[in-house]
Amino acid sequence: MIVLGIDPGTATTGYGVVATDAVASAEATVVGRVAKSAHGAPRLIECGVIRTSPRAPLHERLRDIHEGVTELIARHHPDALAVEDVFYARNVRTTLVLGHARGVILLAGSTAGLAIHEYPPALVKKAVVGTGAATKEQVQFMVAKLLRLKHAPEPADAADGVACALTCVLNAEGPLARLRLGATAGARA
Amino acid sequence: MIVLGIDPGTATTGYGVVATDAVASAEATVVGRVAKSAHGAPRLIECGVIRTSPRAPLHERLRDIHEGVTELIARHHPDALAVEDVFYARNVRTTLVLGHARGVILLAGSTAGLAIHEYPPALVKKAVVGTGAATKEQVQFMVAKLLRLKHAPEPADAADGVACALTCVLNAEGPLARLRLGATAGARA
Repeated sequence: MIVLGIDPGTATTGYGVVATDAVASAEATVVGRVAKSAHGAPRLIECGVIRTSPRAPLHERLRDIHEGVTELIARHHPDALAVEDVFYARNVRTTLVLGHARGVILLAGSTAGLAIHEYPPALVKKAVVGTGAATKEQVQFMVAKLLRLKHAPEPADAADGVACALTCVLNAEGPLARLRLGATAGARA
Repeated sequence: MIVLGIDPGTATTGYGVVATDAVASAEATVVGRVAKSAHGAPRLIECGVIRTSPRAPLHERLRDIHEGVTELIARHHPDALAVEDVFYARNVRTTLVLGHARGVILLAGSTAGLAIHEYPPALVKKAVVGTGAATKEQVQFMVAKLLRLKHAPEPADAADGVACALTCVLNAEGPLARLRLGATAGARA
């Protein structure tokens, strides 16, 4: 299974492509972490950010984001798109503009026929770090740990995209695996 | 000039296609209403709504909206896309979801290379009815008047799409023409 994870933003959209051999079956769930650390360990294929020009009008930035996501889908043929929900605690104008970016991202996945998953930011942090109140640094640290990377993905937005893809992978392995890994991750962080 | 006007919504997106022979020049502005009532009068080509299934997931509804707008552009070859801004006085969740719809609409226009105009709802009402506090019924009434239609466009969302296109046409004829027509419209309403 290949998952494209996206952390939407109008200026910087973070993304991560994560692959796993693990099958979403009862057996895989029971085997749990042992299977994961053997053949089923999730691995990072690519991560980065799609940047748009702050001086460009909104519709051009949306086009850049849509093109960027469409290119990623064409390059990696993911099975699923995992998109982080937008915080709506910030100011309403910001939330509205982020909604635009999220709209064109979901469209790209829908047009390509991908399974689409949406996760609130707190759930992504909980799945990867073990607590919904994790900092950006903790997310970067745990993403690197779980994917056995030498360095944490930079910038933090890229790590957030990877974390979102990881959340989807862990969820596909069953809630048990997710919770177990989440607990371990929390202890390690 | 052909303008596609859109009033975005996740359930119902209203649209109107308005054409005018008027040129956006200083002369056209000076001639003002006389020119408009002669050869330059704006006329309605098509209006309606794009409806999405309330039971479909958001990403499918966004795809339907995007496809609908893309089809309208292919059919009418408009020069400009005029999109109403989203109210953000309502609850934040609604605003966020409307932002998604607006995002895919702006994307469709941007991909087609159209000039893109965004108008706050109050400005659309002001341009068409003469007051930013106009009711939906007043907008429908004035849209029918200005375009010499026998009946007001139905449903109200379609009339809002037409009103948005009209705002763009009136703006292109210069702020003077817009204000003059706006004042007349207000008196007539």
